[in-house]
Order: sequence, then structure tokens, then C-alpha cells
Amino acid sequence: MRRLDVAFTPAAVGDGLHQTATVVIDVLRATTVIVRALEAGARFIIPTLEPEDALRVRDRLGPGHVLLGGERNSVRIDGFDLDNSPASYTPDAVGGATIAFTTTNGTRALQRAANAGASRVLCAAFANLDAVIDQLARDDRAHILVVCAGSEGAVSLEDTLCAGAIAAGLVLRDPGVQLTDAGRAGALLYNGVRERLVEAVASGDHAQRLASMGFAADVVSASQRNTSDRVPMYADGEIT
Amino acid sequence: MRRLDVAFTPAAVGDGLHQTATVVIDVLRATTVIVRALEAGARFIIPTLEPEDALRVRDRLGPGHVLLGGERNSVRIDGFDLDNSPASYTPDAVGGATIAFTTTNGTRALQRAANAGASRVLCAAFANLDAVIDQLARDDRAHILVVCAGSEGAVSLEDTLCAGAIAAGLVLRDPGVQLTDAGRAGALLYNGVRERLVEAVASGDHAQRLASMGFAADVVSASQRNTSDRVPMYADGEIT
Repeated sequence: MRRLDVAFTPAAVGDGLHQTATVVIDVLRATTVIVRALEAGARFIIPTLEPEDALRVRDRLGPGHVLLGGERNSVRIDGFDLDNSPASYTPDAVGGATIAFTTTNGTRALQRAANAGASRVLCAAFANLDAVIDQLARDDRAHILVVCAGSEGAVSLEDTLCAGAIAAGLVLRDPGVQLTDAGRAGALLYNGVRERLVEAVASGDHAQRLASMGFAADVVSASQRNTSDRVPMYADGEIT
Repeated sequence: MRRLDVAFTPAAVGDGLHQTATVVIDVLRATTVIVRALEAGARFIIPTLEPEDALRVRDRLGPGHVLLGGERNSVRIDGFDLDNSPASYTPDAVGGATIAFTTTNGTRALQRAANAGASRVLCAAFANLDAVIDQLARDDRAHILVVCAGSEGAVSLEDTLCAGAIAAGLVLRDPGVQLTDAGRAGALLYNGVRERLVEAVASGDHAQRLASMGFAADVVSASQRNTSDRVPMYADGEIT
């Protein structure tokens, strides 16, 4: 019997994930951006905790090969090439590039999962929902953990909804998967609002803040399901 | 603007609750039992972390005045008078009594809230849902925190549902209350299943375990809303 659990914040992630299929979600906006960037032809994304770490990646690999992307306080970091808006990650902007990438919550959640022993981490968003479910259905590990990046340590509604969408979808695909109560809560939550997902995502704190800063279109686009069949994989410090 | 947050596990409770209206929920079964016991005429309930602490309470107050109640592994503790089934807390059994009470999750959550600075903690369950909402609506503190006892550190579905019921109900009563994303997630979850609440509660891990041990009736009774208008208050080590 396989079992799917959800950590509603990175702090809820225990250790010992070596044998666990691990998924990280940051719908607004890091994992949505990561899916979009790879879809647009980026070669690698190298998540870093701090902007200085991203600069060091560029110095190491050579400035001609690396773009700097990400945000602090939701906007582009001084001296960076790209912000954290999916709309910025067009084929023209990122095709063929390696991107050193730092965000407030998403890259920290990836780091937390790796520190907890996950050797490979799937990056999930609504954009690649069914592709992630597919991949989990083909995985045969007994434990699945879906980690919500949350927002500055707090629960975030959109990540909880996306975790619930994965839980609900995987159980439909493979009735042999059991949900923990966190997985059940997420699945019931998602199933209750699946027909009005944009509205539910838009009601969250982060979405409201993004909308007030002019990023309302990002909230709508990040709520679109299955715009990509890519499942970005974080391993050995790189996402491919 | 008042703000309601939900901690899905006691570990998610921060410090500094001195000015926060704090609610603890353990639907299966501690807070349901606490409501029932006071409804049945118990005078005080003294929650303790360990069975030995409950014995010390009895030694201190005198055996004629104190009943011992609670559970380990869901069943009555050797030498205790009462288990942790609401059905056991009848007027005949507990009328006029003081109860020293220890359970795996509920009494720990109360302790966690008190350690975090909450000088008074409301005990909530579906049994006293509207009464708790009433009391929170009359409270004027800017911050409200609803703490789910959870199960051995993990999220529990029934406590999450009850927290969501409080969040959804309080916002209806007082549209000036804002929910955090955790509160929004809970409210959306509850609203999605409010017409089939018993079924939702029964699908949880703890409910399934209780049912397998012969306590299925407790799951159904703990899912009944508004059977009491009492709001037990934990302060200075006692619930009244």
C-alpha cells in the first residue's frame, strides 16, 4: 500500500526522505516559473537560497551562459535579468540558457526537501498537474510526500490547493494509494473548489498581494491546469 | 481588522499568544469529552500531560473528590475511572466531580497553547461549534488562533474540519474578521463537506482506528453540531 502525505509548510517536513517520492509546490510563483522556463527552452535552473549565491553561480559558469532570475518582495532583484513572473520566461528570453534562480519560498522548500534526504525532487504546479500525477503513478516508492512551499513559513492557500489536486488525482488514478489525513484534507478542499479554481487561488493572501502589485495576470495564469507536460526534477543542485 | 489563523498541528503554534484569543480543538475525542463532561455536571477538569500527573492531582485533592479520566492508545488507563469516550461522561458518572484528565493529543495541545502565553484557552468541538463562534464574535482581541490538536504531531482531518467550521462561521457572523490562508483553506474545506460531515469525519485515520476498536458511535456523536452551548475555558491549569 502506497501512502501520500502533505506537508503544508516546509517546517512540517521530517527527515529521512531518502526513499520517499518528494514533490515541491510553489504555485505563486516559483514552481510555475520553473515549469514555464523549461517549457520555453531553458536548459538548467539552478536554485539558490540567496541572491549572492546566484551571482556566484554566474561567476562560476561564466556570464555569457547564465541568466539571473527570481525575486525579493515579489519584484526583480537589482542587477538580475528576470523577475519571478511566468510571463517573463519566454523562449526569446530564456531559450538555451541556464538560470540561477532565487525566490523567497520556493527555493527554500527545495533546499529543505534536499536537506531532509530527498535525492530527487519533482517540481509541481497547476501548470503540470496531470504530468506530475502521471509520474507519481509510475513511481513505485511506498511513500510520497508533497511539500507546500507556503509563504514565509505560513500555510498558503494556493499550494494547499495544488497539493490537494495531486492527492485527489493520484487516488483516482491509483486507488491503491492511501492518503494521510493531510492528504485527505487537501483532496476534499480541492474537490470542493475545482470548478472555480481561479477564484479560490485569487482569494489567497499571496494572490491578493501580487494583484495589488500589478501581477494579477500571473495569478490567473498560475491557476491554469495542464498547460505543460514537463515535470522538472531537482537533483544534485540543478533542475532539469 | 481582526484576523483568524489556524495552526493545523500544535507544532505550528508560535509564541506570544498573550493577546491572542486561543481555541484548542481535539474532536476525537478530548474536547468533545470536555464539553460533554461539563454538560453532565462535572465541576472542574484538570488536564495533565501524563497519567502519573493525574494520580498526583487526585492525591493532592483527595480521592473522594477526583475522578481519573483519559486514554492511552485510545483505551482507559489502568486504574482510571473513565476512558476517553464521550458516552462515559454521564451525569451519573461525573455530576459534581472534579476530573483529572490525560489524553495523547488534546491535553498536550492545551499545554502547548498555555506555554505559548495564552492565559485562557477555549475548548472547541463540533458539539459546541456555535457557542464558540458566539464567544469569539463577542471577544474584541485582534488575533484569534485556532489550534488543532492533530494526532501524534500529524494533521488530523476532523480537527481541521472543525477549525474550518469555526473560521467559516465567524466570518459569516462578523465580516470584519479576516482569515489567513490557513483559515481560508479550513473554511473552504468545511463548506465543501458540511452537508456530509459525519462521512468526512469518519474517513479520517483516527476515526477509522476508533471504529476498528469499537468506538464507531463516538465518531458519529463527535460529528454532531451544537449539542451544547457550553464553552469550556482552560485557565490556571483548570477547565471550567
